[in-house]
Amino acid sequence: MKASELSSLLGGILEGADVELSACAGLEEARPGDLSFCKDVRHRALVESTKASAVLLSPEWTEKAPCTVIRVDDPNRACMEAARIFAPAEPKREAGVHPTALVDESVKLGEGVHVGAFTVIEKGAEIGDGAVIEAQVFIGEGCRIGGSTHIYPQVTLREGTVVGRDCIIHCGVRLGGDGYGFNNGRREDGSVFIEKIPQLGVVEIGDGVEIGSNTTIDRARIGRTYIGPMTKIDNLVQIGHNVKVKGYSGLIAQSGIAGSTEIGYGCLIWAQAGVSGHIKIADGVQVGPQAGVPQSLDGTQKYVIGSPAMSMKDLAAITLAPKMIAKLKGEVKAIKSRLEGR
Amino acid sequence: MKASELSSLLGGILEGADVELSACAGLEEARPGDLSFCKDVRHRALVESTKASAVLLSPEWTEKAPCTVIRVDDPNRACMEAARIFAPAEPKREAGVHPTALVDESVKLGEGVHVGAFTVIEKGAEIGDGAVIEAQVFIGEGCRIGGSTHIYPQVTLREGTVVGRDCIIHCGVRLGGDGYGFNNGRREDGSVFIEKIPQLGVVEIGDGVEIGSNTTIDRARIGRTYIGPMTKIDNLVQIGHNVKVKGYSGLIAQSGIAGSTEIGYGCLIWAQAGVSGHIKIADGVQVGPQAGVPQSLDGTQKYVIGSPAMSMKDLAAITLAPKMIAKLKGEVKAIKSRLEGR
Amino acid sequence: MKASELSSLLGGILEGADVELSACAGLEEARPGDLSFCKDVRHRALVESTKASAVLLSPEWTEKAPCTVIRVDDPNRACMEAARIFAPAEPKREAGVHPTALVDESVKLGEGVHVGAFTVIEKGAEIGDGAVIEAQVFIGEGCRIGGSTHIYPQVTLREGTVVGRDCIIHCGVRLGGDGYGFNNGRREDGSVFIEKIPQLGVVEIGDGVEIGSNTTIDRARIGRTYIGPMTKIDNLVQIGHNVKVKGYSGLIAQSGIAGSTEIGYGCLIWAQAGVSGHIKIADGVQVGPQAGVPQSLDGTQKYVIGSPAMSMKDLAAITLAPKMIAKLKGEVKAIKSRLEGR
Repeated sequence: MKASELSSLLGGILEGADVELSACAGLEEARPGDLSFCKDVRHRALVESTKASAVLLSPEWTEKAPCTVIRVDDPNRACMEAARIFAPAEPKREAGVHPTALVDESVKLGEGVHVGAFTVIEKGAEIGDGAVIEAQVFIGEGCRIGGSTHIYPQVTLREGTVVGRDCIIHCGVRLGGDGYGFNNGRREDGSVFIEKIPQLGVVEIGDGVEIGSNTTIDRARIGRTYIGPMTKIDNLVQIGHNVKVKGYSGLIAQSGIAGSTEIGYGCLIWAQAGVSGHIKIADGVQVGPQAGVPQSLDGTQKYVIGSPAMSMKDLAAITLAPKMIAKLKGEVKAIKSRLEGR
Repeated sequence: MKASELSSLLGGILEGADVELSACAGLEEARPGDLSFCKDVRHRALVESTKASAVLLSPEWTEKAPCTVIRVDDPNRACMEAARIFAPAEPKREAGVHPTALVDESVKLGEGVHVGAFTVIEKGAEIGDGAVIEAQVFIGEGCRIGGSTHIYPQVTLREGTVVGRDCIIHCGVRLGGDGYGFNNGRREDGSVFIEKIPQLGVVEIGDGVEIGSNTTIDRARIGRTYIGPMTKIDNLVQIGHNVKVKGYSGLIAQSGIAGSTEIGYGCLIWAQAGVSGHIKIADGVQVGPQAGVPQSLDGTQKYVIGSPAMSMKDLAAITLAPKMIAKLKGEVKAIKSRLEGR
Repeated sequence: MKASELSSLLGGILEGADVELSACAGLEEARPGDLSFCKDVRHRALVESTKASAVLLSPEWTEKAPCTVIRVDDPNRACMEAARIFAPAEPKREAGVHPTALVDESVKLGEGVHVGAFTVIEKGAEIGDGAVIEAQVFIGEGCRIGGSTHIYPQVTLREGTVVGRDCIIHCGVRLGGDGYGFNNGRREDGSVFIEKIPQLGVVEIGDGVEIGSNTTIDRARIGRTYIGPMTKIDNLVQIGHNVKVKGYSGLIAQSGIAGSTEIGYGCLIWAQAGVSGHIKIADGVQVGPQAGVPQSLDGTQKYVIGSPAMSMKDLAAITLAPKMIAKLKGEVKAIKSRLEGR
């Protein structure tokens, strides 16, 4: 898009060459063809060295710029607006079932549902009004998907999975795989056996939940693995069987929740953190990045970190131990010298 | 299902309203429509506050319940039985190749094999008797799958992968991807090069192995990456090239084993643990959650934890260091006062 | 393959039975049917106990072997050559679009492009000359794939993703999923809201990049998430929105880079390491296995380890703290005895 066209869409004033622009980027990351922005005169040096082809500046900015300038009242907001203009158009997923999709005749499809190419929907499933099921998805027997939920390509829902309304399920998510459960032991003759415990339950996802790419949520051993409403799950997260996430929580990338654990309302589990099985995390607790929580947290501590998880203060004390030891060592040495000295 | 019908299936006696029931759940998690259970009178309070529509109780239980009661001899066992009744029916995967599946004419299909919709099986592959290959699976050239093995939707097996009998491979598993191997260096002119090392081997999975959703196992650089019999692998586990897992081991979710490492018989690698490359873990050793093992473990220690991995005792000593330091500090201060005091 | 045939392909001399061989393996891992190798006479015991059916030995080797010997000048090199001979043939992906693939009529396909079965390529996408897009792939609207790039089965590229030339994208990779971004807060009435922040940018992958199985790279909030040339990414790695990896770096399995972070040239992020959001890692820095980097690294330290990340020396000091404390305790006790003794 020409800078002149963009400038008029943003209600700005073009100063300099009418360059071609195709994306937004920060001043440092920008490259030719990019539009950048700067509000604060203190970032003058960044503007001077940017490789952007154009930069959004406010009228107060009187410094020079090495490229085309689009003068606007609020550079931040204008950049957000430009980003919307540059964004790839959201693909239209119109109502209807793609001719290659295999939807069992017993499936109940709501009004305006989209089913993409090569998608398989097995018998007894129900898809709510306005749901979008993209290409190459697998929806097993008896699954129920709520209205307006969007399932991206290559997601699998094993039989009996329930997903609420207004959910977003990203590519490669696996719902309803068997939980990890085995009985081990030795037979009378001394030989070892490992026996699969049947995983008889389901996964149930509440309304307004978003689940990131390649995340896995296992079906319950008995009953349900439950993800409460408005929970937002990032990529590559693992949620074990019979976990209950009450709702309004966030689970950041690569975190894991072991079986039968309960996560309260409004919790935040940071990236790569792990929570052990059969425990409870109280409402509103945050588990820091890479933390490992071996036992229940009753909410006395609002934030834990470290493995095993502890307070920030306790972790800092461990980190500072070598310094404290060095200091003590010096003092002990001084005492010894003093005693020797006599 | 009506409580009366369930009660008679369980050989119990119905007391109270003939409510509709559809799932099992613990007393605390239960909600209307659920069946719960309690054996121990000590959990009286949980029974009183449950939201279950019915609860399984033993004849000894004389307390009141806020809902329908199904009286049975053994509530735990009856609940397991009810769970089996409520469980989503296991989808039937009858013998035959779905008309949309693309099975190369050179593929050898055993007796009673099921091949699902949109599955691709390339030339020279062999599928054993009674194997179930579900929808949207990719099986590359020359793969061999043992009898009675079950492969869930959207699994990929790159060329030459071998899977034993009675295995279960969950959705999104990736077998036989290239191992991570590059030669780096500088050319004579000072420029950097990064060169791919050909990954010429395969993945071989023994009998009775289960592999969880979205787990990845790389093909060997040379020879084979080997997962021995009865090994049970959870979701999102990473196994590098040329790893050898002898057998009868468990690898819990999000753990990772780096290239060329050997895991002995009967090991347990807990969630999010990492084992370095080119080392050996002796038979029966357990690597705790989030532990990081930098060097071989000869079995002297049966359980390690921490990163780098150490004994529980050693990790506890580090955790306790701040307390010990505080104590010592007090003692040193006391000594100093005493010395000053003279 | 017969040992005699292999021997002549390798230019070696066969000594012993003309056994059947099908794979290479180390002396310890080898089993009947395998070819192994040994150069160094010090590994005599391993040769004597190997289960390989044949072993490559140099003329200098005068010891006995328990199996067929193929005498060659350089056993290591001969083994590599044998591995190439035993390797599963690389599947041929000939130019052409599989009849089941759905390629929108607006898509620009270069010369000699291969498109596999059940693959979907949406409108406006461009595929460069000689690219291989295997079976069951999803390529969204307006994606651009460079020449000679190879995309394995069951990869998804959301709309607008750009991939360079000579890239390798392994099974199950997810490019362009929405970044994790939400506004949280309380409304005037005290109720909580969680609002999705539109993710308007794209993912852009430079030339010569390799991405391992089931890795996820999120689209930018605004602008682009950028993976620079020759970067090599392993399996199950998570890369957040607006991350910039300058190039020539390695990201090992299960590592994660949080949003808006910049990774310099020639960095190495080891397995299961995590790098926080909105920071910079200087060129050439290595982040050790399971390390957690909370703040920018300016390159003063070339290697960090631990969570939070620190120098090897600092981590060692923490690990040694209990020993140092025990020593100090002894000294303090001795001082006290001495003082008491008077």
